[in-house]
Amino acid sequence: MHITLKDLQETHQRIKPFIHNTPVLSSSLINEILGADVYFKCENFQKMGAFKMRGALNAVLQLSDEQGEFGVVTHSSGNFAQALALAAKFQNIKAYIIMPENAPEVKKKAVKDYGGKVIECEANLEARETTLNKVVADTGATFLHPYNDYQVIAGQGTAAMELIEEHANLDYIVAPVGGGGLLAGTALATYYLSPKTKVIAGEPLGADDAWQSMEKGTLIPQTNPQTIADGLLTSLGDKTFPIIRDLVEKIVRVEEDEIVAAMRLIWERMKIIVEPSSAVALAAILKEKEKYQSKKIGVILSGGNVDLGNLPF
Amino acid sequence: MHITLKDLQETHQRIKPFIHNTPVLSSSLINEILGADVYFKCENFQKMGAFKMRGALNAVLQLSDEQGEFGVVTHSSGNFAQALALAAKFQNIKAYIIMPENAPEVKKKAVKDYGGKVIECEANLEARETTLNKVVADTGATFLHPYNDYQVIAGQGTAAMELIEEHANLDYIVAPVGGGGLLAGTALATYYLSPKTKVIAGEPLGADDAWQSMEKGTLIPQTNPQTIADGLLTSLGDKTFPIIRDLVEKIVRVEEDEIVAAMRLIWERMKIIVEPSSAVALAAILKEKEKYQSKKIGVILSGGNVDLGNLPF
Repeated sequence: MHITLKDLQETHQRIKPFIHNTPVLSSSLINEILGADVYFKCENFQKMGAFKMRGALNAVLQLSDEQGEFGVVTHSSGNFAQALALAAKFQNIKAYIIMPENAPEVKKKAVKDYGGKVIECEANLEARETTLNKVVADTGATFLHPYNDYQVIAGQGTAAMELIEEHANLDYIVAPVGGGGLLAGTALATYYLSPKTKVIAGEPLGADDAWQSMEKGTLIPQTNPQTIADGLLTSLGDKTFPIIRDLVEKIVRVEEDEIVAAMRLIWERMKIIVEPSSAVALAAILKEKEKYQSKKIGVILSGGNVDLGNLPF
Repeated sequence: MHITLKDLQETHQRIKPFIHNTPVLSSSLINEILGADVYFKCENFQKMGAFKMRGALNAVLQLSDEQGEFGVVTHSSGNFAQALALAAKFQNIKAYIIMPENAPEVKKKAVKDYGGKVIECEANLEARETTLNKVVADTGATFLHPYNDYQVIAGQGTAAMELIEEHANLDYIVAPVGGGGLLAGTALATYYLSPKTKVIAGEPLGADDAWQSMEKGTLIPQTNPQTIADGLLTSLGDKTFPIIRDLVEKIVRVEEDEIVAAMRLIWERMKIIVEPSSAVALAAILKEKEKYQSKKIGVILSGGNVDLGNLPF
């Protein structure tokens, strides 16, 4: 493994002073519906509202002084954009965030509010790469990939570490999968710290490249993803895929209406705000609930950044 | 006082096994906006989603065996209806809930889901009284008032007791006011347990009978209330008013847009779901924030029961 137990432990020590050890909540009603004990790790309460803060911080904290002087750059229109901006702000270094020009204004504003410099480009892969190369050439900034990066993966794994520390003997841990940073980190943490626990992923049927990749045994990139779970649109990478292939039990695909129903269940019964991507994990268990009777299940609620003006209810 | 410190302490012991000691949360962003330290007592996480559970339970747990045999009855289309249904269910007794026929179906269904028997009546005070008298005559059920009742007031006061236990030396405690059960209970708990702490109430301008009553020094009933804060439509009662008059520092009236803005702030920044009535308390501080600089403020978030299909955002 490229990431050892020691790496994970050092990662946790490194980022601990800057992150929240988020609470683990339960809902007796959801337990009743499932006939199981579910422990929700609430990364929606994490700084800037999502687990991405962990990986971004871990990467930023390991820059050399010289690298720090020139700042960091990434491409993201989602939570990693905000996470990197905030992590860089903590260290007083510059963050250049490349975003497609059609990204929602609210997301650009959030990045700017955290002190990031937004650089817009056309909404295609080629323009993104060109812009990235140009920013690196112009500024000397260090590129940090939103998920296909071992530092980032290790950082994301710390959420599962905390969950396992608080609740030993889980039968399952369930996380959503998009680019696979959270899932790969979760799988590694579980492999080292709770090897009897099986790791399951939830994935939207409309963006099921991870499921496809697992079926074919080779990386299948996502084309034209269609899902409300806007954190799960990306493809696995060459660093996240092998970890997931080797350590994840299975990927469960869920329909859009199942995502919305799970999200609504969490909102109504737990009185907490989670984004659609988070609900994908619960939807995956609800879909096959007969398999989880009387089991202890950890669920990672990945984030809570939603546009309240545009809800699916 | 009709309610002594010993009453409050016995009340807390009595209901403790049946309720959640709800968490107290903070938000660094909201603290930054206010220039103060705010501690939110999260009764939105209470059983059935609101503080009303406390008062309903306290009343139900003190019924005699004979009273229990005939059940309880109340009139409410809000959280007390659900709270009494659930409290009665815990004790395996019948709960008759009189609701106006035009109450939302979702609220009638919630009461039925908790095992309550919904009895509909025309949406006016006379029909309500007639129906109540008939139910009492027909069933022998004991009437429990949603707020104008010392057992209920004592129960509602336990939220502030827990808050004070967790955070001593608060400069202020802020609660919303409708019928005054929560506010009177909060004021009593604070008077006995943290006498230096001032109690402030938030009230919608469109349902400001408590403010009017305080101004005039006499109970002014609410007529034609107009506010999104649907838990605060009722008038103070002859038991809640004197306590509030004697122990509450002042009542701050807030506009509808201030309520919605405070609610949105809590949703977006704390990632928790609170109902508009809860946001009234935060709106009251935001309105006069210059007065609260560097203060320690407890805010009681009264509940989280909202219709997700009908949000003000």
